[in-house]
Amino acid sequence: MAIVTAVLHRGVVDSDEPILCADDLGVLRGDGVFETINVREGRAFLLDAHLDRMANSARRMEFELPDKAELAGLAEQALAAWRERESGEGALRLIATRGREHGGPPTVYATIDPVPRERILPRRDGLKVVTASLGVNADARGEAPWLLGGVKALSYATQMAVTRWAKSQGADDALWVSADGYALEGPTSSLLWLDGDQLCTTPVSSGILPGTTSAHLMERASKIGLEAVERLVTVESLLEMDGAWLTSSVRGVAFITSIDGREVSQRPGVTAELDKLAGFEVPS
Amino acid sequence: MAIVTAVLHRGVVDSDEPILCADDLGVLRGDGVFETINVREGRAFLLDAHLDRMANSARRMEFELPDKAELAGLAEQALAAWRERESGEGALRLIATRGREHGGPPTVYATIDPVPRERILPRRDGLKVVTASLGVNADARGEAPWLLGGVKALSYATQMAVTRWAKSQGADDALWVSADGYALEGPTSSLLWLDGDQLCTTPVSSGILPGTTSAHLMERASKIGLEAVERLVTVESLLEMDGAWLTSSVRGVAFITSIDGREVSQRPGVTAELDKLAGFEVPS
Repeated sequence: MAIVTAVLHRGVVDSDEPILCADDLGVLRGDGVFETINVREGRAFLLDAHLDRMANSARRMEFELPDKAELAGLAEQALAAWRERESGEGALRLIATRGREHGGPPTVYATIDPVPRERILPRRDGLKVVTASLGVNADARGEAPWLLGGVKALSYATQMAVTRWAKSQGADDALWVSADGYALEGPTSSLLWLDGDQLCTTPVSSGILPGTTSAHLMERASKIGLEAVERLVTVESLLEMDGAWLTSSVRGVAFITSIDGREVSQRPGVTAELDKLAGFEVPS
Repeated sequence: MAIVTAVLHRGVVDSDEPILCADDLGVLRGDGVFETINVREGRAFLLDAHLDRMANSARRMEFELPDKAELAGLAEQALAAWRERESGEGALRLIATRGREHGGPPTVYATIDPVPRERILPRRDGLKVVTASLGVNADARGEAPWLLGGVKALSYATQMAVTRWAKSQGADDALWVSADGYALEGPTSSLLWLDGDQLCTTPVSSGILPGTTSAHLMERASKIGLEAVERLVTVESLLEMDGAWLTSSVRGVAFITSIDGREVSQRPGVTAELDKLAGFEVPS
């Protein structure tokens, strides 16, 4: 159970209190959007970027979100309750469903959970990943907006299934690969790699979710002497790079140690510089 | 709001009573399975086939459903309440989410809604459809079980998006087409077509959801002098067939009048025979 649950226009409620009706389209159809945000020292990291992405997801899904200030207010209500109880890292979720089936406003709420140590150990230990085909070519989702490329919808069953599959293979996470052989992103993370002095990530035209953590790092790449580049990369090329990472808001910057059992090397020191750029604490 | 809502182990509840917690994985991740079932004369049509498919969906999603008898009992609780209030056609939904995020049993409930007349008019008037690329080849999902081909998961955001898109194009529904050009299914329906004396549908190896209504019709095809065949069909070939239909549990048997604005002809009388085989009443 979440430590804190806050509902729009109601404020903080008991996390064991049911808040969604049977006909909420969020559950009937996975029809809604969400964001997961890192909480540090009681504050939501990159909240503004997350709210912008959430608004874009809702626009693509064609439903009306409360405005940004209202959502920020909801987040702050949850954070205030969190600060009274917890001081460690947290995961703030903002959820907005299309609402109930026969009309009415979106269902909007926030939860905050503590981040367990095992979830952030990949910052220190890295991740073994296995590739999994996403079935589509890298340009397919750009041409078919109904496939919701770039949208963070509540419909995450496939992402959960591929993560279970990766774990069943003895790996820590999956790496989505397009039908035409490009490494795209993780099921819940962005892909970054280092090619000489270029810090690279997948272009959004490939239908990936634009990562808030990865964008934060790319915008600041020059501070660590790197040039930020968006391009596609094959799995074979990725194996020859100077490092590869999966980045996400809560797990943070996790270097990839192997892909399908083949080792990925990394230039010493870069992971620590990326952690520092995004302010992630590495567990000892 | 649904006319009837019944929750497993609780029975019938007020449909305006919230029954899902903020951290239910059904809403956080679209992580669960469902079935929609036609209710006629107070009974659920093809309930057994729907319960079998639901069990298969949960098995593929790797979570434990209550057993079939328990789910049938829940459906019957809802149906008993429905019969007290309504006598027309209904849509019974059975929903099972993975449950709350930090453990515990699945969240399982049933709802029944009346079926509005406009929803079944396609039985009489047919459907204009537009093709939409699913992005994947017809054999992609068979090779990548994590893509959840054949699973009726709660993650339906893409199906809803493509339906909105089809309506924005002036059509009634979409028709999913594989990246390699095969017509697969509707977003919430199965594709049938008539080729001479063969009644055809898409093979499940293409990752479509195996339809309960289409299976019922295919099993009984010989009763109307047709041979049941599973095979792939291109959109171009479909335009030359002796009829094409989208079938689903509630909307019933809807003939396709046009695909991307190009007319689809149909052999007179066949739609009426299919309606009769599946017992669908055609509105006047």
